[in-house]
Amino acid sequence: MDLASYIRDIEDFPKAGVIFKDITPLLSDPKALNKACDVLCGFAGHMHVDKVVGVDSRGFIFAPLLASRLGAGFVPVRKSGKLPHTTISESYELEYGSEILEIHTDAIKKGEKVLVHDDVLATGGTANAVCKLIEKLGGEVVQCNFLIELTFLNGAEKLNGYQIEALLQY
Amino acid sequence: MDLASYIRDIEDFPKAGVIFKDITPLLSDPKALNKACDVLCGFAGHMHVDKVVGVDSRGFIFAPLLASRLGAGFVPVRKSGKLPHTTISESYELEYGSEILEIHTDAIKKGEKVLVHDDVLATGGTANAVCKLIEKLGGEVVQCNFLIELTFLNGAEKLNGYQIEALLQY
Repeated sequence: MDLASYIRDIEDFPKAGVIFKDITPLLSDPKALNKACDVLCGFAGHMHVDKVVGVDSRGFIFAPLLASRLGAGFVPVRKSGKLPHTTISESYELEYGSEILEIHTDAIKKGEKVLVHDDVLATGGTANAVCKLIEKLGGEVVQCNFLIELTFLNGAEKLNGYQIEALLQY
Repeated sequence: MDLASYIRDIEDFPKAGVIFKDITPLLSDPKALNKACDVLCGFAGHMHVDKVVGVDSRGFIFAPLLASRLGAGFVPVRKSGKLPHTTISESYELEYGSEILEIHTDAIKKGEKVLVHDDVLATGGTANAVCKLIEKLGGEVVQCNFLIELTFLNGAEKLNGYQIEALLQY
């Protein structure tokens, strides 16, 4: 099954000059959805994982599926002000301006093995901030996995030292 | 297993006077996460379901899990401007102002049986708008299910005519 054939290129989204990788055709096909889940789980299948962290909001699509299949808990990382309980935060630079991500302080216990999942690895800024949040709470990031890696943006360099896996590379 | 014990009350969130039902303790416990998924799937287990629609962003947590287990595809409904391909939209009133939701026009085919999932049923405005989007595309809403129903907000009345299920009621 060629999962790449379920990814649709959208030109000039979200702005002129960008080709957006639309994953919705993959999500809407039951076989492709399960196959993608199988491959992502396979990346981490040999590891013990306590928590799977998913990044708001497209990271929420596969992270709970991975958590369920791996026998782990799911932990959301969200943008500032969205999580209701006590949080810690991490800010990172975007092309224009900056973004703040938050995690509940009780979401990860010291020494827990954590898998980070997001849909796309672009510049790596988001995933790097997520890893820092996990480590601030005493967790150990055992892998960062992604549906798609945009290799020309060199995100893997920013995540140097972490194990990176991606289902599809462009 | 008492799933209600995994829901945490947060006072005055997102604003004074509101008691927010925080589902993150349930999500972070592997057994509670799977048990919640089992119960939600059980609500729809006797039906044929082609697509599970999840509402941005906390609806994304369980909807793909339900889709995967029910052998259906997952379809996201998102806030205005977030979906990259051709969409239709539906606006609905909030306490202050209004909200616009969108769905891809190719996400649901005529005659498909659709399960709607969101984390919380409050006034029913969101779920009602989602049902209208699905019906505009020719889909048939076979059930709306929720982790939590806030019965004192009478959302079920607004969804009159649809089958409603909720894991926990307050």
